[in-house]
Amino acid sequence: MSETVDVTIRESRPEDAEELLAVTKKIGSETEFLVLDESGMSLTPEQLAVQLAAFQESPNNLSLVALVDGQIVGLGSILAESNRRVSHIGELGISILKEYWGMGLGSVMMEEMLAWAEETEILRRIELTVQVRNQRAVALYKRFGFAIEATIPRGARSDDGEFLDTYLMSIMID
Amino acid sequence: MSETVDVTIRESRPEDAEELLAVTKKIGSETEFLVLDESGMSLTPEQLAVQLAAFQESPNNLSLVALVDGQIVGLGSILAESNRRVSHIGELGISILKEYWGMGLGSVMMEEMLAWAEETEILRRIELTVQVRNQRAVALYKRFGFAIEATIPRGARSDDGEFLDTYLMSIMID
Repeated sequence: MSETVDVTIRESRPEDAEELLAVTKKIGSETEFLVLDESGMSLTPEQLAVQLAAFQESPNNLSLVALVDGQIVGLGSILAESNRRVSHIGELGISILKEYWGMGLGSVMMEEMLAWAEETEILRRIELTVQVRNQRAVALYKRFGFAIEATIPRGARSDDGEFLDTYLMSIMID
Repeated sequence: MSETVDVTIRESRPEDAEELLAVTKKIGSETEFLVLDESGMSLTPEQLAVQLAAFQESPNNLSLVALVDGQIVGLGSILAESNRRVSHIGELGISILKEYWGMGLGSVMMEEMLAWAEETEILRRIELTVQVRNQRAVALYKRFGFAIEATIPRGARSDDGEFLDTYLMSIMID
């Protein structure tokens, strides 16, 4: 696809909650590549708004949205626990509306998220799981320096009940 | 240690919440082997009671307590998400007060938890992470059929800031 779009990447805000929930439901229904399904995040807008406000204050949690023409078309996050024994480990996730696949949105969000992670000085390991068959995503993560640590049998299941392998991938931040 | 104790294993109940929070704080302060630290679960008793009630109703979540003389001395859990793409994956955890280490409590809880997992017919993969240096726990998990899938660099951090390797271990349920 040679189409280009103007994309804005910014931190998620509490007032994005309702739109974010609608977008995650749509994304979950469009692809079997994600854990997310058509039921979305199973949170109320109020609960999500509280989480988004907490992420804005958190030194090791980030939630981003990608906007085209003012509409949310993708989201990215790095989530970590507050406990000091694992507070250096962030789990990265990206999801994008199908209509906007192949336009480089994933790369733009990856750049933003990894630059942020380096600045935190708390996060020292970023990890993710991805279905082995999701070759586009695997290639994206490799391009940004992620290495495959393990193949996980039964790491996911397709909608017709077939078990799928996932990769555990990671990158160290120094 | 040749001492034996009478132990009762039962499902956690909402009314255990307060005692459970106190025990997890104590366990977290006694060992660096767990993610749990001395701040415990960072939940209020009310929030934990709601979770415990939900686990009792859930087909793929289990929380157990081990009691000696009516006091909680250990806990075990298998936790899974409700989303169908990963609802077959349970994460297993065990924690025991130091005073009760080496008495076989871990084995008794493992037996109960894995028997329950087989009965669910939902759970098809049980996984856990454990610090490589926690040899007693690694040996316990191997004895129950868990295999090492990967060594995770920086999977945990000691209280003096040293990064530690963890193992990702799993067992398939068929």
